[in-house]
Amino acid sequence: MTKSCTIALDAMGGDNAPRVVVNGANIARQRHPDVEFLMFGREAEVMPLLERKSKLLESSRLVHTEDVVRGDEKPATAIRSGRASSMRRAIDAIRDDAAAAAVSAGNTGALMGMAKLALKTMPGISRPAIASYFPTMRGETVMLDLGANVQCDARNLVDFAVMGGACARTLLGVPEPSYALLNVGSEETKGHEQLHEAARILRNVPLPGRFEGFVEGDDIPKGTVDVVVTDGFTGNVALKTAEGTAKLVNEYIRRTFRSSLLAGLGYLLARPALGKLRRRIDPRRYNGAMLVGLNGIVVKSHGGTDALGFANAISVAIDMVQHGFIDQIRAEAQRVSESPCEPRAAAL
Amino acid sequence: MTKSCTIALDAMGGDNAPRVVVNGANIARQRHPDVEFLMFGREAEVMPLLERKSKLLESSRLVHTEDVVRGDEKPATAIRSGRASSMRRAIDAIRDDAAAAAVSAGNTGALMGMAKLALKTMPGISRPAIASYFPTMRGETVMLDLGANVQCDARNLVDFAVMGGACARTLLGVPEPSYALLNVGSEETKGHEQLHEAARILRNVPLPGRFEGFVEGDDIPKGTVDVVVTDGFTGNVALKTAEGTAKLVNEYIRRTFRSSLLAGLGYLLARPALGKLRRRIDPRRYNGAMLVGLNGIVVKSHGGTDALGFANAISVAIDMVQHGFIDQIRAEAQRVSESPCEPRAAAL
Repeated sequence: MTKSCTIALDAMGGDNAPRVVVNGANIARQRHPDVEFLMFGREAEVMPLLERKSKLLESSRLVHTEDVVRGDEKPATAIRSGRASSMRRAIDAIRDDAAAAAVSAGNTGALMGMAKLALKTMPGISRPAIASYFPTMRGETVMLDLGANVQCDARNLVDFAVMGGACARTLLGVPEPSYALLNVGSEETKGHEQLHEAARILRNVPLPGRFEGFVEGDDIPKGTVDVVVTDGFTGNVALKTAEGTAKLVNEYIRRTFRSSLLAGLGYLLARPALGKLRRRIDPRRYNGAMLVGLNGIVVKSHGGTDALGFANAISVAIDMVQHGFIDQIRAEAQRVSESPCEPRAAAL
Repeated sequence: MTKSCTIALDAMGGDNAPRVVVNGANIARQRHPDVEFLMFGREAEVMPLLERKSKLLESSRLVHTEDVVRGDEKPATAIRSGRASSMRRAIDAIRDDAAAAAVSAGNTGALMGMAKLALKTMPGISRPAIASYFPTMRGETVMLDLGANVQCDARNLVDFAVMGGACARTLLGVPEPSYALLNVGSEETKGHEQLHEAARILRNVPLPGRFEGFVEGDDIPKGTVDVVVTDGFTGNVALKTAEGTAKLVNEYIRRTFRSSLLAGLGYLLARPALGKLRRRIDPRRYNGAMLVGLNGIVVKSHGGTDALGFANAISVAIDMVQHGFIDQIRAEAQRVSESPCEPRAAAL
């Protein structure tokens, strides 16, 4: 299944780099035996780990880089002074045609900033965004933007819908995804002007799939639509609120099972089924946020994930390469900008 | 404990009015035997229900009103044409000193609009907001605004902090609550200008309690602070996302227990403990959103709640009356506006 391709890895990004990166690459190699890795990082730290995985070593090339972008570094500083960092070199590898995609578990702001600088925003797209997908009542839903753009205008939101559609086709395998704008009510008069304007445009542009208007916060976990479009501020708050709430409910349930002998016994009996549930909603399974709208595929792994989580982020990148993600967005963005209801025209 | 007071009820508001309202008042009467009710609604529908509860009938007075604000009515229309509606009359009862507070399960937008018109915004407060409280990892947290103001400036957010503090003191019994602004990161540079400006002011105004800067979405369910301050758009999305996610996790767990015989048996054993948990996180327990920043106490019940939920909304109103909620906010708003870092001065 897997076509041959090379994935660039920032071996120094994330809380437990380079260990998690190398071990994650090793898991990904077993899943995708034809994929090769181009790793960037400190040779003295990475090579000893690589040498312990002989097959991974065979399908990997390590380029020594001394500089590392710190997790708490200001993006502006990292972008300016990190030109020789493992993160930047992994992104540059896409631009230089040495890799088909890059994966990093490092500083999100720096990664997006460097990717914009090195790869440039795709023609026809006003702003790149961060997208991810997660479990819902009905299956899975893609949401974007998750934090790249704190304030967005109608044009940005329309572009996010275009890119979110490509994410849903690529990752969820939905050929004609349904999409909607996140709002505080489903009535047309709700929310602010940018949302109304974006809705007017999305009702008229010829995107593959169905535009469903507005959805509300609870429609995200319900899975009402395949793609939820929102600004980066709201998307980031919604994503983190959902993650935190899932943890809260889990914690309540854990306490409940420990609250009495009978409940504890019940837990023991239900344990295999609960284990299956835990795997189903395991955040590592959904690790790998896509930086979309760039001339290249960049995937951000959670900084604190383990090897399995990092392997999943690599799989997201490979999926995007194999589904021709960039060409899909390019074609859609062109169709939208050529349509008579093109955002700028409609805004006049 | 309960001082004598009169609560005005919109007997016609909500999906199952007037039944839920009358039955809810009956539960509240048992909890607060000294409270009296002033109900507004269609006599032919309400009186037969009241007559079945002789003790409630004794402590209630019913004023016949023919007009009802529909749940799907546009707030502007309802405000214009609903001057004789049960909702408006219940609010007017506060203004006319016939009641200490009003409770309605009807149309939120209409309720807020009518309340602003009849009661006026409190001096020193730039805009009223909707606040509620819910369970967290640490206890309970108040959040506002939950949807009254789609766009907010720094001054609005500062006022929300003042009012949220009064909610925490009243409902959570925390004398010096901690509060924070909801943002996409805890670093000072994150988010938009209104948030930075609000943070600058809140660091300097002499509010009782501790201003903790910025928190993120996952800090809401974590219970990192007692009061989470945000604009009505973000707050509404966060609240609904949290509610939806809690339902999703519950549904996953329900399916899990049905997935095998062993898991089903485990459920039977754990059922009493799980029942306790269900009561702990029962949304009816947290029913009753406060419309704050008005010259009067107005509480909004969920439209779809039952009698127990409606009784809880009445209890919230009684709590606010007994804790001198209005005087608390008035005093704080005055202190903030007299402080040298008063929002408008600081914005120069």
